[in-house]
Amino acid sequence: MREICVCLEFLSDAHRDRIRRTAEAQGFQAHFFTPDQFAEAKACLQHCEILYAHSPELLREAPASLKWYCCSFAGVDPYCQDPSLFANPDCLLTNSNCYGVTIAEHVIMVQLMLLRRMPEYEAVVRNRSWSNQLPVRSIRDNAFTLLGLGNIGYHVAQRLRGMGAARITGLSRSGKAREDVYDEVLPISALDGVLPQTQNLIMALPGTAETFRILNRERLALLPPTATVINVGRGSSVDQEALREALDAGALAGAALDVMTPEPLPADDPLWSARNLILTPHVSGNMTLGYTCDQNVALFCQDLENYGAGRPLQNLVDRARGY
Amino acid sequence: MREICVCLEFLSDAHRDRIRRTAEAQGFQAHFFTPDQFAEAKACLQHCEILYAHSPELLREAPASLKWYCCSFAGVDPYCQDPSLFANPDCLLTNSNCYGVTIAEHVIMVQLMLLRRMPEYEAVVRNRSWSNQLPVRSIRDNAFTLLGLGNIGYHVAQRLRGMGAARITGLSRSGKAREDVYDEVLPISALDGVLPQTQNLIMALPGTAETFRILNRERLALLPPTATVINVGRGSSVDQEALREALDAGALAGAALDVMTPEPLPADDPLWSARNLILTPHVSGNMTLGYTCDQNVALFCQDLENYGAGRPLQNLVDRARGY
Repeated sequence: MREICVCLEFLSDAHRDRIRRTAEAQGFQAHFFTPDQFAEAKACLQHCEILYAHSPELLREAPASLKWYCCSFAGVDPYCQDPSLFANPDCLLTNSNCYGVTIAEHVIMVQLMLLRRMPEYEAVVRNRSWSNQLPVRSIRDNAFTLLGLGNIGYHVAQRLRGMGAARITGLSRSGKAREDVYDEVLPISALDGVLPQTQNLIMALPGTAETFRILNRERLALLPPTATVINVGRGSSVDQEALREALDAGALAGAALDVMTPEPLPADDPLWSARNLILTPHVSGNMTLGYTCDQNVALFCQDLENYGAGRPLQNLVDRARGY
Repeated sequence: MREICVCLEFLSDAHRDRIRRTAEAQGFQAHFFTPDQFAEAKACLQHCEILYAHSPELLREAPASLKWYCCSFAGVDPYCQDPSLFANPDCLLTNSNCYGVTIAEHVIMVQLMLLRRMPEYEAVVRNRSWSNQLPVRSIRDNAFTLLGLGNIGYHVAQRLRGMGAARITGLSRSGKAREDVYDEVLPISALDGVLPQTQNLIMALPGTAETFRILNRERLALLPPTATVINVGRGSSVDQEALREALDAGALAGAALDVMTPEPLPADDPLWSARNLILTPHVSGNMTLGYTCDQNVALFCQDLENYGAGRPLQNLVDRARGY
C-alpha cells in the first residue's frame, strides 16, 4: 500500500480520522508522528510517497521516492531557496494558505494600536501617569495600502472594510486579486507612485528574490511622516536598519513587525528599542485557532484527493517563483 | 434675539458655520468660546437660553434662565448626581451619543490584545527574549457578552459580527435593543445566569445608582477563569479591588479598563500592577476622529431644530434615571 508520513503537532483525533479516511479512499495508509518523534518519523518516511509536515530537517531525510511534500506553513521560502532539501528534484511542493484569519486579527490589532498610539499610552501607564490628549486616528475614514493580496491580504481587507475604511488599495505581483474586496488593485511596479499617498502600509508578501528588501531605504523615504507600516509576511522584505532610523527620526509615525531578520532577533539588536515600534515574536499565524487547524487539514485532504485522482494540486508552489 | 453659548475645543470653521446657520434659522444667535476662555463664556452665558459644552463648572455659572444644557459628552453622571449644578431645576439636559465608533475601535483593539495575550508577549519583548508558543484565541468563533446596548454596544457588536464572532449576547436595562445586531438580548436581571457561560464580557454602561458596582466580587467569581473583562463605560460599575484580586489569582484571564475610580488613578494604586490588565487613561472616546466631531455637532443641530420647533429633544436625558 502507498504510504503517507504526517509529522505535525496540532492534529486532533478528528483531524487524524479525516486524514486517515481521505487517504484510504485514495489507496493510501497514513502514519502519524509529532515533531518530537523525529527518529520514528524519519524511519517511516523511507517508504512514504507523501510527507505532510513543516520541517526542512525531516524533508532532507526523505528518499528520492518522495513525490509530494505538503508544508503545513504558508511561507515556503526555506524550501524554494535550498533545492538540496529535495532528494527528488521533481518532488511536488504545496503550502497551506489557511492563516489569513488569525493573521488578519493580528494586523487589525496592531493597526489599531498604532493609530490609537498605544506605544505612547503604554509608556504613560508604565510611568503611572495620566495624560490622554494625544490625537488618535481610526480605521473608519482612513486609507490603507496592502502589499500582497493572498489569503492574508483578503482577510485584512475584509475586516478594514467592515470597520469603515475609506479606501483600500491593493498591490500584487500580477496587478490582480482573486477577491473583489479592494477599491483598486495595482501591480507592485506601481509601488513608488503609491507610497507618497499611503497612510497605512500593510505588508503580507512571501519571501522571494523579488520581495527581498522591497521596502528599502529609498521607498521608506517616500512614505509621509504620518504613515504607519505593518509587516506580517517575511522579515526579508524590509530594510530593518532604514526602518529603525526612520522611526527614531520621526520620519514615520509607527510600525509593527511580527517578522524580522534574523529570527530570533539578537538581544543586542537596536531594533528592540526603536521608537513607536510594536515587535511581536512571529506570533500572528499562531495555530491555536481551531479554524486555522481545520483549514490546514482540509486543504491537505482536498489536494490528497486531487493527487489520488491525478488532478493538478490546488496549492502547488512554483519553486522557481518562490510561492 | 435669543442666544446660545457654545464652549468647546473641537469645533472646525465648518462646524461653527453649521451651528450658526441652524441657530439663525431658529431665531438664535450663537456665541463661540473655547474652554480656556472661561471668563468670557461665563459672561456671555448670563443672557443665554442654551449652553453646548462639557463643563460642570461653566454650567454652575448659568442663571436660572438657562433652559437647555447640551453636554457634548455621552456620560452625564456628574450632572445627574449633582442637581445643584442647575440654577433652573427644569433645565433640559441632553447628551451626545456619538462616541460609538471610536470607542468600538478601542474595544476591538483591547479585546484582540487580551485574546492574543499581548500583555504577556509585551513582557517577552521587553526582556528581548523570543518565545511564541502561548496559545492565542480569536474573535472568530468566540462568544461575547455585551453589557449596555447603546451606541457603543451597537458598534462593538457590528465589528465583532464582521470578524466572525460565534455568538453575541446583549444585556440591557429594558431587555431590548434598538438595533438587530445581537444573537439574543436579555434584561440585566439575567446577568447572574449569563456570567458562568461568558467568555468575554464587554461593559459599556452609564454611571447610575443601578450600575454602581454591578460587576461586584460575587459576580466576578461567576466568570470562568478563561474569561476576559473590558470596561469602557464608567469605573463605578466595577469593584476594582475584587477585579485586581481575581486577575492576580489567575481567576480571570485578563482585563482592560479605560475607565476607573478615581480618575486619574493615584500613582500608588495597586491596580497599576495587576496581572494581565491593560490600563488606558480614559482615551477610548478621544474626539480626534472627524466622524465623532461631525456627529456631535449634527446631534446638537438636530435637537436645536427640535427645540426651535417645540418638538421633544431626541437626546434628552432622564435626570432621575441618569442617562
